[in-house]
Amino acid sequence: MPAACQSLETHLGHTWRERHLLTQALTHRSHGADNNERLEYLGDGVLNCVVGLMLYQHFPDLPEGRLSRLRANLVNQDSLHEIARELDLGRYLRLGEGELKSGGASRPSILADALESLFGAAFLDGGFEAARAMIEGLFSERINAINPTVQGKDAKTRLQEWLQSRHHGLPRYTLIDTSGQAHAQTFHVECHIAALKITTMGQGCNRKTAEQVAATAAMAQLEGKKITTKSVPAANKAQPA
Amino acid sequence: MPAACQSLETHLGHTWRERHLLTQALTHRSHGADNNERLEYLGDGVLNCVVGLMLYQHFPDLPEGRLSRLRANLVNQDSLHEIARELDLGRYLRLGEGELKSGGASRPSILADALESLFGAAFLDGGFEAARAMIEGLFSERINAINPTVQGKDAKTRLQEWLQSRHHGLPRYTLIDTSGQAHAQTFHVECHIAALKITTMGQGCNRKTAEQVAATAAMAQLEGKKITTKSVPAANKAQPA
Repeated sequence: MPAACQSLETHLGHTWRERHLLTQALTHRSHGADNNERLEYLGDGVLNCVVGLMLYQHFPDLPEGRLSRLRANLVNQDSLHEIARELDLGRYLRLGEGELKSGGASRPSILADALESLFGAAFLDGGFEAARAMIEGLFSERINAINPTVQGKDAKTRLQEWLQSRHHGLPRYTLIDTSGQAHAQTFHVECHIAALKITTMGQGCNRKTAEQVAATAAMAQLEGKKITTKSVPAANKAQPA
Repeated sequence: MPAACQSLETHLGHTWRERHLLTQALTHRSHGADNNERLEYLGDGVLNCVVGLMLYQHFPDLPEGRLSRLRANLVNQDSLHEIARELDLGRYLRLGEGELKSGGASRPSILADALESLFGAAFLDGGFEAARAMIEGLFSERINAINPTVQGKDAKTRLQEWLQSRHHGLPRYTLIDTSGQAHAQTFHVECHIAALKITTMGQGCNRKTAEQVAATAAMAQLEGKKITTKSVPAANKAQPA
């Protein structure tokens, strides 16, 4: 039996007049037909709109590409899951028996979706300003904490700035190969940083994407991070002439 | 010199108090620094939010996947370009000289982006309700015209329903090949409709996408449309045993 919702509503700063909307937002599809899937769709839209506006106003000098990337980072599943955990949202969820037993109440996707559903339910219950106030309450600290000199930059830009600040030469991107049939090709690009003898590979559905993947792999090497992108470590490759 | 904006504002149903926002929304990046790129980012968010709400309310029984696809069709470049042409938006644009000479005022991407920018500029000027009224005015007829028994369904569902309604057997999807390295594979799937001796191919970054592409190609053959997807017409393939 899920916990009573007063404490959750206090944390969210909204008391639902239409109580059934709150119940629905907290109901996973495993529980039955009257679940939160449509509210999640609605909440996703209002979340993107409000966070989009917050970033627009907070960063009056950032170009739209940077704003889009910052927004994507703020509203992704990881970020929503983190907020849902802070709200202890799992306590309030209504799950089917199987989902409950298999730990659904702490599953990141279920928690993130329920949080979006709450935004959708607030939008319907109190209009745009109610959803906006709720989202602002949850995201404003996160937005204040953004360092715009680092975050939201694409990998090629970050790599270039990292190298320039250390007076190294620029990386060289070379198209090594394309595979697949026309209209569905995969591009294989190499990123080579001569001064540091680093070579990484990137793949993607176009050249630009493949370059970004290769640059991400190079940044990961430079920062000593584990490489989780589609890259081939330099050690596995013959160094180019 | 762009046309005066009174007529445009009448059609949009909003008179800007902050006139510079209207000017900025109509200024392409080719014209200079104070252009509409940030407003377009903002407008994209409010457009998705409002159209999302309109569809949610108009189709109380559609699942969220269908709503998402309907929304994607309504807010894509083709649709926005069409609305922009109806508004004669090209007359009001401020473009750089080169862009002007090369026909930028009728380029679909420039027109679609400017329309989104106007939504963003209305959002800043008059708040959410002003943007909502504008978007509702432009999209409500389009939403009323949607036939939910057809639109927003994915290709496999449409193909299955088409075949069932004619008492044919279901299509068979077979994974024929995968190509590319791990993490960047391309899947090649065949869709075969035995009763009609139709075979199409689809490619995609996963099996599900490849099946949808193959189903789209099959639907196109059945409806006698020109095939524009990544498909191989059946005539080019040996018929399976």
